[in-house]
Amino acid sequence: MPQLAPVGQLGTQAIGDVPTEAGAVIIDAQLAYHRWGEYRVNDDGISNVLLIEHALTGDSNAAEWWDGLIGPGKAINTDIYCVICTNVIGGCNGSTGPSSLHPDGNFWGNRFPATSIRDQVTAEKQFLDSLGITTVSAVLGGSMGGARTLEWAAMHPEVVQAAAVLAVSARASAWQIGIQSAQIQAIENDHHWHEGNFYESGCNPAVGLAAARRIAHLTYRGELEIDERFGTKPQKGENPLGAYRSQEQRFAVESYLDYQAEKLVKRFDAGSYVVLTDALNRHDIGRGRGGLNKALEAIKVPVLVAGVDTDILYPYHQQEHLSRNLGNLLAMAKIVSPVGHDAFLTETRQMDRILRNFFSLISPDEDNPSTYIEFYI
Amino acid sequence: MPQLAPVGQLGTQAIGDVPTEAGAVIIDAQLAYHRWGEYRVNDDGISNVLLIEHALTGDSNAAEWWDGLIGPGKAINTDIYCVICTNVIGGCNGSTGPSSLHPDGNFWGNRFPATSIRDQVTAEKQFLDSLGITTVSAVLGGSMGGARTLEWAAMHPEVVQAAAVLAVSARASAWQIGIQSAQIQAIENDHHWHEGNFYESGCNPAVGLAAARRIAHLTYRGELEIDERFGTKPQKGENPLGAYRSQEQRFAVESYLDYQAEKLVKRFDAGSYVVLTDALNRHDIGRGRGGLNKALEAIKVPVLVAGVDTDILYPYHQQEHLSRNLGNLLAMAKIVSPVGHDAFLTETRQMDRILRNFFSLISPDEDNPSTYIEFYI
Repeated sequence: MPQLAPVGQLGTQAIGDVPTEAGAVIIDAQLAYHRWGEYRVNDDGISNVLLIEHALTGDSNAAEWWDGLIGPGKAINTDIYCVICTNVIGGCNGSTGPSSLHPDGNFWGNRFPATSIRDQVTAEKQFLDSLGITTVSAVLGGSMGGARTLEWAAMHPEVVQAAAVLAVSARASAWQIGIQSAQIQAIENDHHWHEGNFYESGCNPAVGLAAARRIAHLTYRGELEIDERFGTKPQKGENPLGAYRSQEQRFAVESYLDYQAEKLVKRFDAGSYVVLTDALNRHDIGRGRGGLNKALEAIKVPVLVAGVDTDILYPYHQQEHLSRNLGNLLAMAKIVSPVGHDAFLTETRQMDRILRNFFSLISPDEDNPSTYIEFYI
Repeated sequence: MPQLAPVGQLGTQAIGDVPTEAGAVIIDAQLAYHRWGEYRVNDDGISNVLLIEHALTGDSNAAEWWDGLIGPGKAINTDIYCVICTNVIGGCNGSTGPSSLHPDGNFWGNRFPATSIRDQVTAEKQFLDSLGITTVSAVLGGSMGGARTLEWAAMHPEVVQAAAVLAVSARASAWQIGIQSAQIQAIENDHHWHEGNFYESGCNPAVGLAAARRIAHLTYRGELEIDERFGTKPQKGENPLGAYRSQEQRFAVESYLDYQAEKLVKRFDAGSYVVLTDALNRHDIGRGRGGLNKALEAIKVPVLVAGVDTDILYPYHQQEHLSRNLGNLLAMAKIVSPVGHDAFLTETRQMDRILRNFFSLISPDEDNPSTYIEFYI
């Protein structure tokens, strides 16, 4: 019986040394995590664990960012399942990352190696191993969490019984690499970056991180939704139409983006942002596996794929590509929303139906009839 | 008879003081321009001038950037028309802008006022007035040039006989303002910016301008086209999948964006980039005219509207909005292309047909039958 952190509280787990795909080692690592629901194992030896995978700047408190979807009786039902969400390796919410102390007592800083999505899964596998959890009922995640979910299905079919892959692709597209690299450069161009070793200096490349977030946020949100909210409105008390340009005289949307950026700067580490964004650039399910489609075909874990019709970061055709090529497609669902990429977080009612369908498909139960949205199996 | 610059050569024209919409004055301004074809006036007193409006970092050498579309016998037929293309006010290709010398002998720098799209038209109107040109057969332009074209039709219907408005909207959207402001900030955050007065110091905010261009380029190009060209390929001789992240180890798409950025830095001024991008943020055909749709309805100049199906910067629904609301829609055309926004520059064959249709609609000629692509009048 694994020794799990108390329900809803942040726990940490030592996971030993994590070797990376590219040949480095993250020594003496730990992952932080949350869990909800009691751990059980069924007659077939399959645990009731659901592994939830957070997105780039998300964290292990999934019940907060997937508010309304996780809890007793909810789509991700903690009466039935033991829900576990780790903080990703390389992050800054309790798991080992660039802002963590290295065993030598100094910060990891730029000694923290580049990681791939596969390395994130490797760390999580060591986490489950260290707890004695050998099987999970399902892995679920969107965006970077969806990339991890897909790699889980590819790397450890012996562990994963089913997967729900949301708003992601089989590999990074060139456009994603481009826009993500622009964000990394914004941070690396900040003179407080100090090649990634700013922790001891007391500096913080906050301007660079804020710039990165403003760009990123515009890839997470659909232009229809943003325009509906802000249009060309000036920020209250400011005049962006004055005779001379001024940074202090903003449109409302600029103020909104500044606010999003400030929020992120307060809660997130620039070093982690670079490491995790670089991991997204490296996402490629086909690498070393004979190419994309061969790798997808080889995935025999049942996978539900869902995407957002207005997503410009992971356009819907990328989820269609997954659905065409996965070796065992469970279902395909489309989230219809003006919100864009983030709709997998914000369209709770649609996600509720998609996830309830998912669970009814992976553990059929006549008391839980599914209500289809748009499934093409 | 206007004294025009020799065919195909850069000319300059003093246009006097240009008052801006927001209440400043650009004193003693000039516009630089190119022209092709001979000037004529028909029996109705209408000149054969076609005014071509360039995009943000474009210039007056339209025969170069619209290669294949301007010349004798081409869609923009210089045997028939006198084609004139000015460099926009605020730019850096011969027209007065922040990098120009002020009459006091120092650089304009940040004394150069904020300009709107309407100010750009005002300057161009003064340019035509100074040459004695009182009518033009048509104004044509895409992107920022399309915004100018639309304002020409709204501001000076007595001058403009017809207009072709490509890949633009009735006003800036919040998403555009967001992504454009991110570009402005990249420049303003460069420590070589010096509040816009870097010219005398010999500094150049090249890093900021390069960062702005990388972002911008990803809004000009469709993800399908970029992915088809670059995918996840590494740049030759570099390894972006190494054990530690390095700026020097790039994906091919990063190298491509760096190249685009370097090219722009060599040919464009950061001060002009800020002024013109700010002008795009201010684009709003409805301002002071009773709102967008009333302003569009009031435009009685016949307008052809065209857009690109994969444009994420000016999505096609924005051109549909124009087409629904313009007071005298001549035709609507869709450019179908994976290229995104820039398709109005690159899809020469489609543009050729659209422009030939446009000219046949505005001056019917039985020798020049039109070949429709997708016109919904």
